Amino acid sequence: MGIRVAVAGASGYAGGELLRLLAGHPEFELVAATAHSQAGHRLDVVHPHLTGLDLVLGETGPDTLADADLVFLALPHGQSAALAAQLPADVRIVDLGADHRLANPYEWAHYYGGTHAGQWTYGLPELPGQREQIAAATRVANTGCYAAAITLALAPLIAAGAAEPADVVVVAASGTSGAGRAAKPHLLASEVAGDLSPYRVGTHQHVPEIKQATGATGLSFTPILAPMPRGILATVTAVPARGVDPQAVLAEAYADAPFVHVLPEGRWPHTAATLGSNSCHLQATVDVDSRRLIVVSALDNLGKGAAGQAVQNANLMVGLPETTGLPVYGVAP
Amino acid sequence: MGIRVAVAGASGYAGGELLRLLAGHPEFELVAATAHSQAGHRLDVVHPHLTGLDLVLGETGPDTLADADLVFLALPHGQSAALAAQLPADVRIVDLGADHRLANPYEWAHYYGGTHAGQWTYGLPELPGQREQIAAATRVANTGCYAAAITLALAPLIAAGAAEPADVVVVAASGTSGAGRAAKPHLLASEVAGDLSPYRVGTHQHVPEIKQATGATGLSFTPILAPMPRGILATVTAVPARGVDPQAVLAEAYADAPFVHVLPEGRWPHTAATLGSNSCHLQATVDVDSRRLIVVSALDNLGKGAAGQAVQNANLMVGLPETTGLPVYGVAP
Amino acid sequence: MGIRVAVAGASGYAGGELLRLLAGHPEFELVAATAHSQAGHRLDVVHPHLTGLDLVLGETGPDTLADADLVFLALPHGQSAALAAQLPADVRIVDLGADHRLANPYEWAHYYGGTHAGQWTYGLPELPGQREQIAAATRVANTGCYAAAITLALAPLIAAGAAEPADVVVVAASGTSGAGRAAKPHLLASEVAGDLSPYRVGTHQHVPEIKQATGATGLSFTPILAPMPRGILATVTAVPARGVDPQAVLAEAYADAPFVHVLPEGRWPHTAATLGSNSCHLQATVDVDSRRLIVVSALDNLGKGAAGQAVQNANLMVGLPETTGLPVYGVAP
Amino acid sequence: MGIRVAVAGASGYAGGELLRLLAGHPEFELVAATAHSQAGHRLDVVHPHLTGLDLVLGETGPDTLADADLVFLALPHGQSAALAAQLPADVRIVDLGADHRLANPYEWAHYYGGTHAGQWTYGLPELPGQREQIAAATRVANTGCYAAAITLALAPLIAAGAAEPADVVVVAASGTSGAGRAAKPHLLASEVAGDLSPYRVGTHQHVPEIKQATGATGLSFTPILAPMPRGILATVTAVPARGVDPQAVLAEAYADAPFVHVLPEGRWPHTAATLGSNSCHLQATVDVDSRRLIVVSALDNLGKGAAGQAVQNANLMVGLPETTGLPVYGVAP
Repeated sequence: MGIRVAVAGASGYAGGELLRLLAGHPEFELVAATAHSQAGHRLDVVHPHLTGLDLVLGETGPDTLADADLVFLALPHGQSAALAAQLPADVRIVDLGADHRLANPYEWAHYYGGTHAGQWTYGLPELPGQREQIAAATRVANTGCYAAAITLALAPLIAAGAAEPADVVVVAASGTSGAGRAAKPHLLASEVAGDLSPYRVGTHQHVPEIKQATGATGLSFTPILAPMPRGILATVTAVPARGVDPQAVLAEAYADAPFVHVLPEGRWPHTAATLGSNSCHLQATVDVDSRRLIVVSALDNLGKGAAGQAVQNANLMVGLPETTGLPVYGVAP
Repeated sequence: MGIRVAVAGASGYAGGELLRLLAGHPEFELVAATAHSQAGHRLDVVHPHLTGLDLVLGETGPDTLADADLVFLALPHGQSAALAAQLPADVRIVDLGADHRLANPYEWAHYYGGTHAGQWTYGLPELPGQREQIAAATRVANTGCYAAAITLALAPLIAAGAAEPADVVVVAASGTSGAGRAAKPHLLASEVAGDLSPYRVGTHQHVPEIKQATGATGLSFTPILAPMPRGILATVTAVPARGVDPQAVLAEAYADAPFVHVLPEGRWPHTAATLGSNSCHLQATVDVDSRRLIVVSALDNLGKGAAGQAVQNANLMVGLPETTGLPVYGVAP
Repeated sequence: MGIRVAVAGASGYAGGELLRLLAGHPEFELVAATAHSQAGHRLDVVHPHLTGLDLVLGETGPDTLADADLVFLALPHGQSAALAAQLPADVRIVDLGADHRLANPYEWAHYYGGTHAGQWTYGLPELPGQREQIAAATRVANTGCYAAAITLALAPLIAAGAAEPADVVVVAASGTSGAGRAAKPHLLASEVAGDLSPYRVGTHQHVPEIKQATGATGLSFTPILAPMPRGILATVTAVPARGVDPQAVLAEAYADAPFVHVLPEGRWPHTAATLGSNSCHLQATVDVDSRRLIVVSALDNLGKGAAGQAVQNANLMVGLPETTGLPVYGVAP
Repeated sequence: MGIRVAVAGASGYAGGELLRLLAGHPEFELVAATAHSQAGHRLDVVHPHLTGLDLVLGETGPDTLADADLVFLALPHGQSAALAAQLPADVRIVDLGADHRLANPYEWAHYYGGTHAGQWTYGLPELPGQREQIAAATRVANTGCYAAAITLALAPLIAAGAAEPADVVVVAASGTSGAGRAAKPHLLASEVAGDLSPYRVGTHQHVPEIKQATGATGLSFTPILAPMPRGILATVTAVPARGVDPQAVLAEAYADAPFVHVLPEGRWPHTAATLGSNSCHLQATVDVDSRRLIVVSALDNLGKGAAGQAVQNANLMVGLPETTGLPVYGVAP
């Protein structure tokens, strides 16, 4: 008999991707999927791509969830903490929201507002020592999608002294699913088609998380909405240490990471190659003109950036191989 | 130890999707993947989404393929027959090309040119009795992608006398991967973006296959290239028999078909819900004004329309459950 | 001094396209642009592509509009009639909504609900005699976007006896701007990307208008939402009269129509070629298998399907050449 | 009678856009449009969006072009110089290629190969004093599309001492039309859909032009191919001078530039708003975390980045107002 898991916030995009992954997971048994306004609806009405998965969405709350061994929270930012507090201590939780990522309560208050609910174990297993921390934890805060892409690109280079932390410049573009499923005018297909659109320039709420996770001390982060449903492409530049071989540093850092692929020289990451997978592709070089270090990172914001990563964390928390039930290969073209 | 399989034509889109499915298949062991101009290249250079699958493409030919228990041929139309003739009789073959689909050699000569290589067992397991035929065969001709979408929508209705075969009108749109990976000007992203473009109007080479498979005797078929990488949406209309309930006919026909989903009333198929899966979604109604029967069918042209269907056929041919290693759920959004 | 024009409903997509066209029109002087919830906002906040057009949106109502010589109403269906009734009789009106298109009040009540406000002159100048009717009218009901594409393809053929009116089958796909700018979940970019999605199958509210305008007596119409911002591609099939040359019939019908292009043999219309223009492209053939007549029509739903057509009608109503200020050529790629 | 103009390289995307703009230009009379492999074809076969423009493409060469008062060269990089040398000295030329942009012949040799043909007047009228230079020139080298977007964003800030030239980091994404119309596998719609793909990272041939035009002395430039047909979005970051108000510097620099719009505070440029226009939208801020200056620039790579700019230059060269025949407003959605 499998490990009993539940998904709160199953009607959103990350929730839908969680259900898709869980449906193919050999060890996890889905016992509840809950939603807010969509509670009471058949799952295939809410997620037509899950047609065949016979399920009715329950009401999000401790009653529907407490029966599981492990609960995934895929709720809007700021809503996880209250629900988590109502769940038994022995129910493991992976929170896909931002509520428990930050160490610094002032940064939470500044960027999200309200009282910080406290920091949980940070759910990026590829950081040094983090795999073990996650395996030992009962509460794990999933990395944000931008933070995942940027941290995988940058953290080992700063840690190895190969990149200076003080002057990091990141431009990262995301597919629209990263902005959620709420019907907002600027997310309409008519608006997004053929459009690249920067947002929150110079003041994005993910900056503290990215600095905390990468070790960067000065970060310019410009996010861009791209005309595609999934995918993040992050271009990360920093001042390198003299004589550094960034590819070698990355290759060593991820030698044992089954989902992080440092590409062979000459091949650069692109988002479509990671769609539907839990993989992150990386490549690095030093610019011939400016001598800045450039690292490019690509992943699926709903995969390694959200639901895939959550399942990877859950696997570790219950003692399974971290790759269980997770696709390495993208769906392309 | 698994069943040894090989893929000829691995550098194309159907070949790539075959490799992705085979990589996740629990019983098939990939022993060779071959190509023509790409032979000798690492697989991940040709298919970046398969990064992590450590493989070099071989040269397409009997030497590289004959060692397998089962060979998938994903070659351009007209190239399967010669290669198949060189493979041992006990090597099972699933041909994704058109070479062995048609019963009538004159139709082959008219639409494709050259001599017809003979008909093989038709690889659409959902047709009555076909599952057993495929299980007994060593040579199976995969259904074309348009033919799969249209046949699943129409064949049971004609067979049941619910739709008249003489006046069938089909308009079907396909994503660009259906047109292959050869670099042609009209397939450039700049041309396809924002564009719906009909082609071979009134004279398409798939008409004979569709008529043969559906039982239609008069068929108007208009194919359209749509601005998306995958997916076929077929709108099939015909004159219904009086008092027919088309949904009921379809539901009964596919009661035991794990990949064909007749949707609940009010939900219509759309392509994105099937992306990456081996599923086909169907819905039907009778038009209130014209009293024509309308059936809409959606599938992934590389999934149920090509590689997924091929694996389904291969499963049957070697005695596995037909669902082995095949995704039912789409990747969305 | 120019002719004074105003646009009610300027915040929507058709309204925005009207403003773009009017900004380049040599004879029309824009004196007011009004909106509902967006009233009081700068135009470039609502329509960033009109940056440089210095304007604040007014409140939609007779006070802001009655001062114009001609008013364009680009309001949601059902809202034009009440406003039109409040405007002086000598103010010319072009209504882009459906309120005044239908002759039959029962059909209005059935498909739209409420009391029919009465029929106005139908705004498709390319119909026989219609150019003169429009020139003489002070109230013109613009053709719907689907109806424009289908009527231009079919009406001359039925009128000439070249196509039987009793069994017309139309499948037509539209870009998302045709569904308006209201934020609805199914119109989100994440949902629309890579998706073809039929809707209101077998029971669409445009059927009565299309029948009325084309002369069809039996019509099966299946509309499909396509993953592109603009464009309609209509595939129209009917039973032809024996020996008919449909291309010749169309070529003769549109010999003097500056915006309707019957393409040379072998070239089929596609939507991207009409983007941003007021042109409609047509091509026709007789299917070799079914002997049905197939006509394909492409236009920009916001151009010839809405705002461009409205300006064309306005030109005629005030005695200008119908081409004044209207682009013939599309913006591609 | 108009000024006689000709277009060499009319079959490509920039050539097609030139023809579209020239068709609507009130003072220019198109006397020849030439091509290489497409010579002899009807224009509407090559550019279906120009259906109605009755023209046959001529052979590119001095015979077909020398009769014009002004010739636009829209040829592949490296092919302009030889043709230009064969044209009479009194025929004005605007070269859309790279051949005559660079001052430094070694940079040409390094990035393009071969012998440098010499520098012409640089065709960006918005640079200080450049409008007059262009008006006096008979040979003008159009700015590259990336260079146009980046230079408009950055040059006034460096010139004003508001941005340090030594550490400029640019990430810029372009629509696929920027890569031309040649059929290359990586430009297929199937590959580009849903994909962001960096290329020539750390070593792009446009770096020398951008440095020359902006005054930057150290430049990290990462170009990205985006899934859209048109548009460039450039994110430009640099170290600002203390206390600088970058928006004010830009607003002053472009106070008299009809096509460059520094947006009101809070609105950021996005590509779709500029499609089909000759406008460039700009916005700037100082990042709250890193204190880097961020400028974002959006334009249509075929508009202000190529054909629109070329017409603007041509207007100046023949003494017309620079705005003649050029759209300020984009086509959206």
